[in-house]
Amino acid sequence: MEIKYSKIANSLKASEIREILKLSEMPQIISFAGGMPASETFPIKELAKISKKVIEEDGNIALQYTATEGYTPLRETIAKERMTKLGVKTSAEEILIISGSQQGLDLIGRLLIDENDTVICENPSYLGALNAFRLNNPNLIGIPMDKDGMIIEELEKVLATDTTVKLIYTIPDFQNPTGVTMSLERRKRLAELATKYKVIVAEDSPYGELNFNKRTLPSIKSFDRDGYVIFIGTFSKILCPGNRIAWMCAKKEILEKLTQMKQAVDLQSSTLSQRIIYFYINKYDIEAHIENINTLYLKRRDVMINAIESFFPKDVGITRPSGGLFIWVELKQEIDTAELLKKALTLNVAFVPGKAFFVDADKRNFLRLNYSSMNELKIEEGIKRISKLLTKYYN
Amino acid sequence: MEIKYSKIANSLKASEIREILKLSEMPQIISFAGGMPASETFPIKELAKISKKVIEEDGNIALQYTATEGYTPLRETIAKERMTKLGVKTSAEEILIISGSQQGLDLIGRLLIDENDTVICENPSYLGALNAFRLNNPNLIGIPMDKDGMIIEELEKVLATDTTVKLIYTIPDFQNPTGVTMSLERRKRLAELATKYKVIVAEDSPYGELNFNKRTLPSIKSFDRDGYVIFIGTFSKILCPGNRIAWMCAKKEILEKLTQMKQAVDLQSSTLSQRIIYFYINKYDIEAHIENINTLYLKRRDVMINAIESFFPKDVGITRPSGGLFIWVELKQEIDTAELLKKALTLNVAFVPGKAFFVDADKRNFLRLNYSSMNELKIEEGIKRISKLLTKYYN
Repeated sequence: MEIKYSKIANSLKASEIREILKLSEMPQIISFAGGMPASETFPIKELAKISKKVIEEDGNIALQYTATEGYTPLRETIAKERMTKLGVKTSAEEILIISGSQQGLDLIGRLLIDENDTVICENPSYLGALNAFRLNNPNLIGIPMDKDGMIIEELEKVLATDTTVKLIYTIPDFQNPTGVTMSLERRKRLAELATKYKVIVAEDSPYGELNFNKRTLPSIKSFDRDGYVIFIGTFSKILCPGNRIAWMCAKKEILEKLTQMKQAVDLQSSTLSQRIIYFYINKYDIEAHIENINTLYLKRRDVMINAIESFFPKDVGITRPSGGLFIWVELKQEIDTAELLKKALTLNVAFVPGKAFFVDADKRNFLRLNYSSMNELKIEEGIKRISKLLTKYYN
Repeated sequence: MEIKYSKIANSLKASEIREILKLSEMPQIISFAGGMPASETFPIKELAKISKKVIEEDGNIALQYTATEGYTPLRETIAKERMTKLGVKTSAEEILIISGSQQGLDLIGRLLIDENDTVICENPSYLGALNAFRLNNPNLIGIPMDKDGMIIEELEKVLATDTTVKLIYTIPDFQNPTGVTMSLERRKRLAELATKYKVIVAEDSPYGELNFNKRTLPSIKSFDRDGYVIFIGTFSKILCPGNRIAWMCAKKEILEKLTQMKQAVDLQSSTLSQRIIYFYINKYDIEAHIENINTLYLKRRDVMINAIESFFPKDVGITRPSGGLFIWVELKQEIDTAELLKKALTLNVAFVPGKAFFVDADKRNFLRLNYSSMNELKIEEGIKRISKLLTKYYN
């Protein structure tokens, strides 16, 4: 067999790390590797009841095809509730329901990127976004970050000199993988730069509502006067990911193109999932539910940071996110975290080596820790195990 | 606002017909325009019960992320039951769960097509497939059909002269839009040609099990010795489309690339939907369910053909499918069915004009009729209304 694949398909390689991380799914492993929400937060009883009711009472519609744009009452609720919370005035016409945030990234990639066009992102950034964009063969440029997110002056240098920039990708809230949040000032500047350089900003905010301070910053989209910002939100982290329901919010002209593309790539998102989520929001208090999630994650974050401070060598650098799912760890230059992971697995603990999150530089001394999906005892025990591996590299 | 879209996004145009067909969704319209299964066949009680049970008993898994490949027990069941019925010996390793057949078409397009590569399809063919492939800017070549499907001699002429052919797309069973089924002999020949010319065949079979004769032909995939055939099957027509669960069956090497692509475009298909379908199949008799669907559709097809024979002018040409959802109608050369549709909507009846299904030629005198989604009374009444419009062109 000798298959004539497309250029893109030829460039796909099996990821060694992905293969290793499959081991982290074994039940005996304490895994800080995934980005999974805590399944004990899922409103199981409520969703079970709703799903039965939706199918029983409306099955002829809920199990049938529906419009590509999505279920109108759900789009209205998202516009009115979720987007308003982020400071965005919008309406159902500017909301497209998608099959998870990842689909939004794919659609944006196709909407904007021709081969060798420049895509700007934070460095490091979400690997899944980079992989979605890479299907269009872009030139990826990573902008360094500090404690306030992407350094806007560095961004503007690129915008001022590179005329092929098509997209700025950012995760402003509790970024993946660093946990860093972009400051209010930079959000405003980024929206201004988008207009000035006529470049689209993709604002990906899966963690925005997982805010331990209850002080949600306005989204970049809220400062978008001219329609250059496309916002992506999701129910995966505030309700459950298994339903695959997320949304994009964009100016109508853009949304129409995204809708045509979505029609070509999967016709529509699940009619049933859309209705289940709509009826959950309508009947139960999702704000109270999100508060419960945040109470749990705050506790877990604290347990993880306390354990790191107690057991890790003093020189290890960490971020202290005030929301989201991840802590980012910087080790001594000479430590290769891919090698460290192999050793960690022999101690039944896992994390993600940082290298794959970087766009360009060959940085091997970082790792990402997730604190949402393991209980407090396991978090402490897992950090102890990693610290055992680290101590021999330090002092 | 002035957005620098990708070449593909710039080429997207709002479809005039699509806008007109939105009118066909109004409740007073007798619509033969869609391709929807009859919602009265959906096993509503059973699915309501199962969904509640799946969430209640397994919610922490059923609402969580899962592997891109899909739920293993469902993949095993598909390999063992659905694929065996089509004469294919395979295993779960060769099955990828996807979010509807449409996603399979998109994944295949990206797997194989670079700009200006040739894609061969039947002429006419499924518009949604053409649109998925068009996102990769191919050179589309349509092969004429007769009552036994794609004319294989015409196909081989193209294969023998065009070295850029990357894909042959076919709907061998009760084709959309014509209702025509590819003969056994041609299925074998097509599999041979795929090997001879090292070209992938995408065998799209959403209607294969909607067979009024109970005589299912072996799939093209069943004659595929060397792995050049990718089969796409779906639960949309034999259970319900609102769950968005379908599958691809391909040789492992190919399936791995498709899986990597799926991970980049939407991570995974709905965990919940996969489990609901799996438990339905496991607990209930899906073969009996499919028989009930076929009994209903056969009755509706007969009512439609009888009404056409009673009321349409004698010179109108129609196909007489022995399964699936569609009848294809050829009118006098001078009739433009897009214009006819506008008149039909004033009589509250709708169909799809045939032009968009053709790859190249400007053929305006065809239309597609769906008989699955309207009841018998409406089918007869709708055909009468269309015949009123037709009589003045004939005499």
